Amino acid sequence: MRRKEANSHKRRRMSNRNLSDKYFYVGEHETVTGIRLTQYNETTIHTREIKTTDTFNKLVDTNYMNWFQVSGLTDAEAITRIVQDFGLHNLDAKDILTPQHVVKIEEYESRLLIILNSCYYDANTEIRTEHISILVAGDTVITFTESSNPVFEATYKALESNMLSIRKKGSGLLLAFLLNTIIANIVESVTKVEEMLEDIEETLLDIKNSQENMGSLIQQRRHEYMIIRKNSQPLKEQFSKLLRSENGIISSDILPVYNDLADQLSFIIQSSESCREIISSLVDLYISNNDLRMNAIMKRLTIVSTLFIPLTFLVGVWGMNFKFMPELDWRYGYIIAWSIMVICGVITWLYMKKKDWY
Amino acid sequence: MRRKEANSHKRRRMSNRNLSDKYFYVGEHETVTGIRLTQYNETTIHTREIKTTDTFNKLVDTNYMNWFQVSGLTDAEAITRIVQDFGLHNLDAKDILTPQHVVKIEEYESRLLIILNSCYYDANTEIRTEHISILVAGDTVITFTESSNPVFEATYKALESNMLSIRKKGSGLLLAFLLNTIIANIVESVTKVEEMLEDIEETLLDIKNSQENMGSLIQQRRHEYMIIRKNSQPLKEQFSKLLRSENGIISSDILPVYNDLADQLSFIIQSSESCREIISSLVDLYISNNDLRMNAIMKRLTIVSTLFIPLTFLVGVWGMNFKFMPELDWRYGYIIAWSIMVICGVITWLYMKKKDWY
Amino acid sequence: MRRKEANSHKRRRMSNRNLSDKYFYVGEHETVTGIRLTQYNETTIHTREIKTTDTFNKLVDTNYMNWFQVSGLTDAEAITRIVQDFGLHNLDAKDILTPQHVVKIEEYESRLLIILNSCYYDANTEIRTEHISILVAGDTVITFTESSNPVFEATYKALESNMLSIRKKGSGLLLAFLLNTIIANIVESVTKVEEMLEDIEETLLDIKNSQENMGSLIQQRRHEYMIIRKNSQPLKEQFSKLLRSENGIISSDILPVYNDLADQLSFIIQSSESCREIISSLVDLYISNNDLRMNAIMKRLTIVSTLFIPLTFLVGVWGMNFKFMPELDWRYGYIIAWSIMVICGVITWLYMKKKDWY
Amino acid sequence: MRRKEANSHKRRRMSNRNLSDKYFYVGEHETVTGIRLTQYNETTIHTREIKTTDTFNKLVDTNYMNWFQVSGLTDAEAITRIVQDFGLHNLDAKDILTPQHVVKIEEYESRLLIILNSCYYDANTEIRTEHISILVAGDTVITFTESSNPVFEATYKALESNMLSIRKKGSGLLLAFLLNTIIANIVESVTKVEEMLEDIEETLLDIKNSQENMGSLIQQRRHEYMIIRKNSQPLKEQFSKLLRSENGIISSDILPVYNDLADQLSFIIQSSESCREIISSLVDLYISNNDLRMNAIMKRLTIVSTLFIPLTFLVGVWGMNFKFMPELDWRYGYIIAWSIMVICGVITWLYMKKKDWY
Amino acid sequence: MRRKEANSHKRRRMSNRNLSDKYFYVGEHETVTGIRLTQYNETTIHTREIKTTDTFNKLVDTNYMNWFQVSGLTDAEAITRIVQDFGLHNLDAKDILTPQHVVKIEEYESRLLIILNSCYYDANTEIRTEHISILVAGDTVITFTESSNPVFEATYKALESNMLSIRKKGSGLLLAFLLNTIIANIVESVTKVEEMLEDIEETLLDIKNSQENMGSLIQQRRHEYMIIRKNSQPLKEQFSKLLRSENGIISSDILPVYNDLADQLSFIIQSSESCREIISSLVDLYISNNDLRMNAIMKRLTIVSTLFIPLTFLVGVWGMNFKFMPELDWRYGYIIAWSIMVICGVITWLYMKKKDWY
Repeated sequence: MRRKEANSHKRRRMSNRNLSDKYFYVGEHETVTGIRLTQYNETTIHTREIKTTDTFNKLVDTNYMNWFQVSGLTDAEAITRIVQDFGLHNLDAKDILTPQHVVKIEEYESRLLIILNSCYYDANTEIRTEHISILVAGDTVITFTESSNPVFEATYKALESNMLSIRKKGSGLLLAFLLNTIIANIVESVTKVEEMLEDIEETLLDIKNSQENMGSLIQQRRHEYMIIRKNSQPLKEQFSKLLRSENGIISSDILPVYNDLADQLSFIIQSSESCREIISSLVDLYISNNDLRMNAIMKRLTIVSTLFIPLTFLVGVWGMNFKFMPELDWRYGYIIAWSIMVICGVITWLYMKKKDWY
Repeated sequence: MRRKEANSHKRRRMSNRNLSDKYFYVGEHETVTGIRLTQYNETTIHTREIKTTDTFNKLVDTNYMNWFQVSGLTDAEAITRIVQDFGLHNLDAKDILTPQHVVKIEEYESRLLIILNSCYYDANTEIRTEHISILVAGDTVITFTESSNPVFEATYKALESNMLSIRKKGSGLLLAFLLNTIIANIVESVTKVEEMLEDIEETLLDIKNSQENMGSLIQQRRHEYMIIRKNSQPLKEQFSKLLRSENGIISSDILPVYNDLADQLSFIIQSSESCREIISSLVDLYISNNDLRMNAIMKRLTIVSTLFIPLTFLVGVWGMNFKFMPELDWRYGYIIAWSIMVICGVITWLYMKKKDWY
Repeated sequence: MRRKEANSHKRRRMSNRNLSDKYFYVGEHETVTGIRLTQYNETTIHTREIKTTDTFNKLVDTNYMNWFQVSGLTDAEAITRIVQDFGLHNLDAKDILTPQHVVKIEEYESRLLIILNSCYYDANTEIRTEHISILVAGDTVITFTESSNPVFEATYKALESNMLSIRKKGSGLLLAFLLNTIIANIVESVTKVEEMLEDIEETLLDIKNSQENMGSLIQQRRHEYMIIRKNSQPLKEQFSKLLRSENGIISSDILPVYNDLADQLSFIIQSSESCREIISSLVDLYISNNDLRMNAIMKRLTIVSTLFIPLTFLVGVWGMNFKFMPELDWRYGYIIAWSIMVICGVITWLYMKKKDWY
Repeated sequence: MRRKEANSHKRRRMSNRNLSDKYFYVGEHETVTGIRLTQYNETTIHTREIKTTDTFNKLVDTNYMNWFQVSGLTDAEAITRIVQDFGLHNLDAKDILTPQHVVKIEEYESRLLIILNSCYYDANTEIRTEHISILVAGDTVITFTESSNPVFEATYKALESNMLSIRKKGSGLLLAFLLNTIIANIVESVTKVEEMLEDIEETLLDIKNSQENMGSLIQQRRHEYMIIRKNSQPLKEQFSKLLRSENGIISSDILPVYNDLADQLSFIIQSSESCREIISSLVDLYISNNDLRMNAIMKRLTIVSTLFIPLTFLVGVWGMNFKFMPELDWRYGYIIAWSIMVICGVITWLYMKKKDWY
Repeated sequence: MRRKEANSHKRRRMSNRNLSDKYFYVGEHETVTGIRLTQYNETTIHTREIKTTDTFNKLVDTNYMNWFQVSGLTDAEAITRIVQDFGLHNLDAKDILTPQHVVKIEEYESRLLIILNSCYYDANTEIRTEHISILVAGDTVITFTESSNPVFEATYKALESNMLSIRKKGSGLLLAFLLNTIIANIVESVTKVEEMLEDIEETLLDIKNSQENMGSLIQQRRHEYMIIRKNSQPLKEQFSKLLRSENGIISSDILPVYNDLADQLSFIIQSSESCREIISSLVDLYISNNDLRMNAIMKRLTIVSTLFIPLTFLVGVWGMNFKFMPELDWRYGYIIAWSIMVICGVITWLYMKKKDWY
C-alpha cells in the first residue's frame, strides 16, 4: 500500500528535466514551506518564524550568525528567490527542488552549496530518504528540508547549550554540526542494515529454522543497502572537495571536526561494502539451503519408494489368479510370505543405511 | 517481427569500415534528407527549408545565429559536403553517417563535433536509439538526425519564446538546449527501466504471483539497460572535455547550464548502475523462486507417495490368495484392516506434520 | 578433428622461450616464406617477387616508398636477417616468429614495430587468428604474415587506385591502411559474435524452442569472444603510444585517419564488453530455462502420481479377499465404486487446478 | 550464546556519533583502566604502575624513552586527559574510545596517532578483534588496548633483552616492535583461515565425505575472512603514509624494519585475496556437490521405479478376475509368468546399465 | 599423502614473524646448504664448490664476474653472513629464508635484491613452487635456491657456450638469463594449466562423456592457477622497477632482453587472466551439465510412471472382488481389457512424444 503510493509519486520523478525559467518541487512531501530564522552570537540566541514573502538577504544581521531553516519545498517560488538573494544561479534552485538530484558539493566563490540525501529508518523500520540542501554564504547558513521532520533539532540544542563553543565559531562549525547529524543518521541506518543481515544469517545458518520468506527479506535488505550506498558513496567522493576548499568557511581549528566526519563517511563506505559481501554470501547460503531441503525431501521419497515398491510387487505376485501356484496352498505359505517381505524390507533398509543414509 | 527486421538492418552494420574517398549512410532509416535553416538574433527569428544542393557556408548570415537542422542521412553526398564546407575532415562525415559509431566529443580549433545516440521508448514501449550529431562552428550549429522525428521541437519552441534569453547568447546556449533534450530523453529511459524493474521485483517478491515469463522479462530489461549504458557511459566520460574546452563556445555565464547537464549525466550513470544491481538481484530472486516452487512440487509428491504407498502395500497383502490367511475369515477382519490403514495414514500424517511439513 | 589438430600445434607454443642466438617459427602455418616488394611514388607503382636470400636494405629505392610483404614465416633465418638489416634487435625477430607473442607497439628511434593478431571467421564460421607484424623504418614498410592469405589485398588495391592520394603521402598513411584492414577484420568478428549471441538469446527467450546444445553453443561463443578480447584489448591500450609518437611517421594531416582507427578500436572494446554481459546473461537464462523445464517435468509426474496413487489404493482395497466385505455384494457396488473413484479423481484434479496448476 | 552476547554489545555500536564535549567508551570490554609506565635508556629499564589521576606529561622523563601502556578504556575521562596532555584534539580521544572506528594513521606536526584493530584466534578458535591505538609524541609512546590481554608482552621482553639494540634507538623502533606484534597476529589469523579453508576443500573434494554442515562452515570462514580483510586492507593503504612521513620518528636506519612490516602487510593482503577466491570456489564446489548428491538420489529412485513399476503392472494383470483368461489355467502358467517377469527385469536392467548407469 | 605432508610443513609457515637478531629457514626442503662459485670472463670460466664457512666477499675476484650458487637454505647462519658480507640488512636474510615471503624487487644503492617464486610441474604433473632469491652487487651475482634442483643449469650452459656473448657483458645479462629461466618455467606452467583446462572443456562440451570427477579436476586446476597468479602478478608489478632502475646494472645494450622478459610476464598475466575466465565458464558448464543430467533422469522416471501408473490402476479395477462386474464375465472381456490398456499406453506415449519428449 505504502509502497504503491511511493511509486505513484516516483513516477513524477525528474520532471524538472527541461531547461526553463521556473522550476517546481517534484518530490512526494506536501509540507507547506515554513522558514525559521535563528540568529546567535557568543552572548545571545533568538529564533523566529519568518514569512516566505520577505526579502531574505535583508533579514541578515551581520552582528549575528544567521541560520535559515526552510522546511517544506512546496513553495518553489520562495525557494528560488532565496537562492537568488544569496547570489546563486536559478539552476541551483532546481537542484534543491529535485529530490532525485545526485549528491553534490559545489563551491562558488565564497558560497558553498551542498545537496545530499539523508537516510533513516522510520517507526515501522522502513527506510526513508530525505532530500536536504545546505547553502553557506559567509555568516549565513540556509538549510532546506523536504518535510518538517526535526532533523536539525540536535543542532539547535547544541547552539542553545553552546556546545564546543559553537556560538563563538563561524558558519564552518555550524555546518559541521548539520552534516554530523545527517551523517550520523546514515551511520545508524547502515549499522541497522548490517545487524538485520546478521540476524538473517543466524536464521539461515541453522537449516532447521523456518526460512519461509528469507528470500524476500534478503531482497528487501539489499534494496535498503542500495539506497544507503547510492546516497553515501558520492557524498564520500565529494567530501574531499570540502576539505581542500580554500574559501575560509572551514578554518584550521575546526578541521578535526571535518576529519571526524570524513572518518564516519569511511565507516559508512566500509560497512556498506561489508553489507554487499554479506548479502551476496546470504544469497549463496539461501540457495544452498533450498538445495539441501530439496535433497532431504527427495531422500525421503526415495526411501519410501525403495522400501515399498518391491514389496508391493511381491504381494501382487501372490495375488495372481494362476491355477497352479503351489506356495498358495502351503500350510505356512502366508507366514513364509510375510517372512520374505520382512527380510526384503530389512535388507533394503540396511542397504540404504549403509549407502544412502549419509 | 519487428525484431527480425531490426536484425536484418543490423547486419549491414559498420560497413563503412574501409578507408575510402566516399562514405554511405549505413543505418536503417530511409528518411529523405531535408534541411531546415533557422536564423535568429535578439529581435528576429525565421525558418526556411533549404535545398541539399546549396552551398551551405554561403547561407550563413553573420548577423544571425544559424541553425541547420539536417534530418535524414540518406543523401550522404550532401552531408559530406556540409561537413567539408565547415572545415571538417571527410572522416567526420563518415562518423555522422555511421549509426554504430561510438559516442565522441571532438574539438578542432574553433569547431566542435559531438556524435552521440539518444535513447527513448516509442509508443509500444520498445526502446529505440537515434544517432545524432551536432557540429558547432562559431555562430553556426548543425544538427544531424537519422529520422524526421521532432527531437529538437522543444529547443525550437524555446527559441521562439526566447527562454533564458537564449537568443541573446551565442551558440553555447543553443548547444546546451540541444544536449539537454537528448540527455532528458535518456534520463526518462533509464527512469522507465528502473520502474519496470521495480514492477518485476514486486511480482517476484510474492511467490504466489504468476511468474510465467519473468525470465524473459528480466532479460528484456537487461537488454534495454545495456543499450542505455552503452550510449550514456562514454558520453559521461567525454563530457568533461566540453567543460574543460577553451574554444569560447561555452562562456562562463552559461557554465551552470553545462554543470546541470553533467549532473543529469551523473544521475543517468548512478541509475544505470542501480539497474545493473537490481537486475542481478532479480535474477537471484527468480532462480531461488524457481527452486522454491520445485521444492513445493516435490513436497506434494512426497506427501502423496509416503501416505499411499505403504497403504497400497497393505491392501495388496490382504489381496493375496494364500489358502491360510486367518484374518481374512475373521468377522471384523475388514473393519480391522480399515482401522489399521486409517491409523497408519494418521501416524504417517502426524509424522510428516512434525518433521517435513515445515 | 580440426580442433585436435589445432591443439597439437598449440602444444609447441612458446618454445622460443630460452634466450638464444637464433629463433624459430613456432606457429602452425607451413607456408613457404615468400617476399613481394611493392615500390611506388606519385606517378608509378610496380611489384615484384624477391628472393629470401637478397640483402634487403640494398633493395630499398629512396625515390620510392618501399613495401615488403613477407608471407610465411618458416624461413626464420631470412626473417631474422630482414629485421637486422633494418636496424632492429635479434629479439624482435623472435617476437615476429612467435604467434603467441603479446600484442605490442614499440618505437625505436625512427623505427616502429607493431606486433598484433588479426581475427577473422573462415568459411566454416570458425574463428581464426593470424599473427601479423609491421615494421616501419622511414620510407620502408615491411609486413609479416604467417600465411599467404591475401589480408592486405585491399591495401594494394588502394595503392593502385591511389585512394586518398595515398601514393603522395609517406609511410604513415600506408601503415594506416594496413592497420585499418586488420582492425576492420576484428570489427567484423566482434559484430558476428554479437549477432550470433543475439540469435542464441532469441532461441532461449522462448522456452518452447529446442535448446538441445545451447550450453555448448554459448561456451563456444564465449571462447571466440575471449580470443577477440585477448587480441584487441592490449592493442587498444598500446594504440595511444602511436598517437603520441613523435617520430614523424604520423604527420598531422593523416592524424584524422588514426583517430578514426582509435574510434574503431573503442567500438571493438565496447562491443566485446557488451558480448561479455550478454554471455553472462545468456548463461543465467540457460540455467533458469533448465530449471523451468525441470519444474515442468516434475509437475507432470506429480500430477499423474497424485491422481492415480490414491485410486490404486482404493481398487486395492476392494480387491482384498476378506470374507465379510458387505459392499462387494451390493447390487450397485461396482458402480458406486466407480463413482467414488471418479469423484475422487475430479476433486483431486480441481484441487490441483486451484493450487498447483499456476 | 557467546554470539548473542557479542550482538547485544554490538547494538551499542557507534553511539559516540554526536559531536560533544565528552565521549564514552562504547566497546564490550569491561576492564578497569590501568596504566603502566616503562622508562628505559641504553643502560636502565624500569616499569611501574601509575595512577589514572596523574598528570601524564609531567611523568615524562626526557633522559629516558617513555612508554605508557594503557589497558582498559572504561575510564574515558583519563584517556581524554592523556590525549590532551600530549597535544591532541578531543576528537582523537573519541576515536580511541570507539572500537568500531575505521583504521587510520594520522600525523599532526611531530605527533603520530595510529588507530587499528588486531585480529587473533582465541582458545576456542573463535576470531576476536581488539581495538588498539598508538600515540607517538617525541620520545613518548602511548599504547591503548581495550582489555588487559598481554598483547605487547613480546615487545616488553625485547626491551628487557635489548634486542636489535632497541634501547639505543628512538621511539621509531619501539613503534616498529609494537606494530610488528599486531601485524604478526593478523598474519597468523589469515594463515589460520587459509588452512581451515584448505581443510574444508579437502573434505569437499571427496564427495564420499560427510558434508553435513559444510555450508555453515564455509559461511563462518567467510565471516572471519571479512573481519580480517576489513581490518587489514585500510591498514595497508594507510601504511605508506608512515613510510613517507617526514617527522623524524622513522629514521633511515630503521627503515628496513618498516619495509619488512610493509611486506608482511602485502602478505596479508595477498593471502586474504587468496582466501576470497578459495571461498568463492568452495561455494561452487559445495553447490555442485549438492547437485551430484541429488542426482545420485534421483538415479536410485528412477532405477527402483523403472524396474518394479512395469512388473507390478504385470502381476496386476494376472490378478484380474476375468472369467476367461486362458493363461491362468495353463499347467506352467505361473512359471511362465515368473520367467516373463525375470526376463523383463533383466532387460530393463541391461538397458539401464547401457544408457543411464554412466 | 603428499598433500598431507605438504600441509604439515605449511603449518610452520611464516614463523619468522617476530623481529629478532637471528632468523631460520622455515620452508619444507631439507637440502644441506651447498655453495658453488663460478668465475668467468671473456676468455676463462671455472667453477668450484666452496665452504659455507668462508668469508664470501674475500672470494670475489674483480678480474672476473662472480656467480655464487647457494642451494639449500638450511644453514641460515651462513646465508645471513653472505647477505651481510655484501652489505645488506639482516632482514633481507629473513626474506631469503622465508619461502612464504611476497615477491619483491628491492634496490639499495648499487645492490639489487630479487625475491620471487618459480612454478613448475614435476614428473607427477603436480605443481611445485620454489623460493628463489637473487642478489646482485656490482660484478657479483648470488642465487639462493631452496633445493638442489638444477634450475639454473641452462644459464650455466649459456655461460660455457658464451651465448649472446654473455661473458663479455656485466652482471645485467647474467641476471637476465637467470630471470629468463625462472619466467620461462612460469610460462610453461601457465600454458600447461591452460591446456589442461581446454581438455576439461572438451570433455564437458560433450555431455555424453563421463564427467565423474570433473568438479574436483576443475577445482584442482583453479588451485594451480591461483598459485601461478599469486607468484606472477606481483612480479609483473615489481618488474617495472627494474626497467626504471638507474644503478647501471641494466645497461642500454641489454635493455631489449629485459623488454623481452617484460613481454613474457605480460603473456603470463594475459594467460592467467584467460585461465580465470575459462575456469569460471567451466564451472557454469559443469553445473548446467549436472542440471541437464538431472533433467534426463527425471524425464525417464516421469515417462515410466506416466505410462504404467494409470495401467496399474486399470488392472487393479478388474482385480476387484465385486459380485456384479459384468465385464468380467464377457467372453472377450480379457482381450478388450488388454486392448484398452494398449490403447491407453499408446495414447499416453504419443501424447508424451508430442509434448514432453523435446
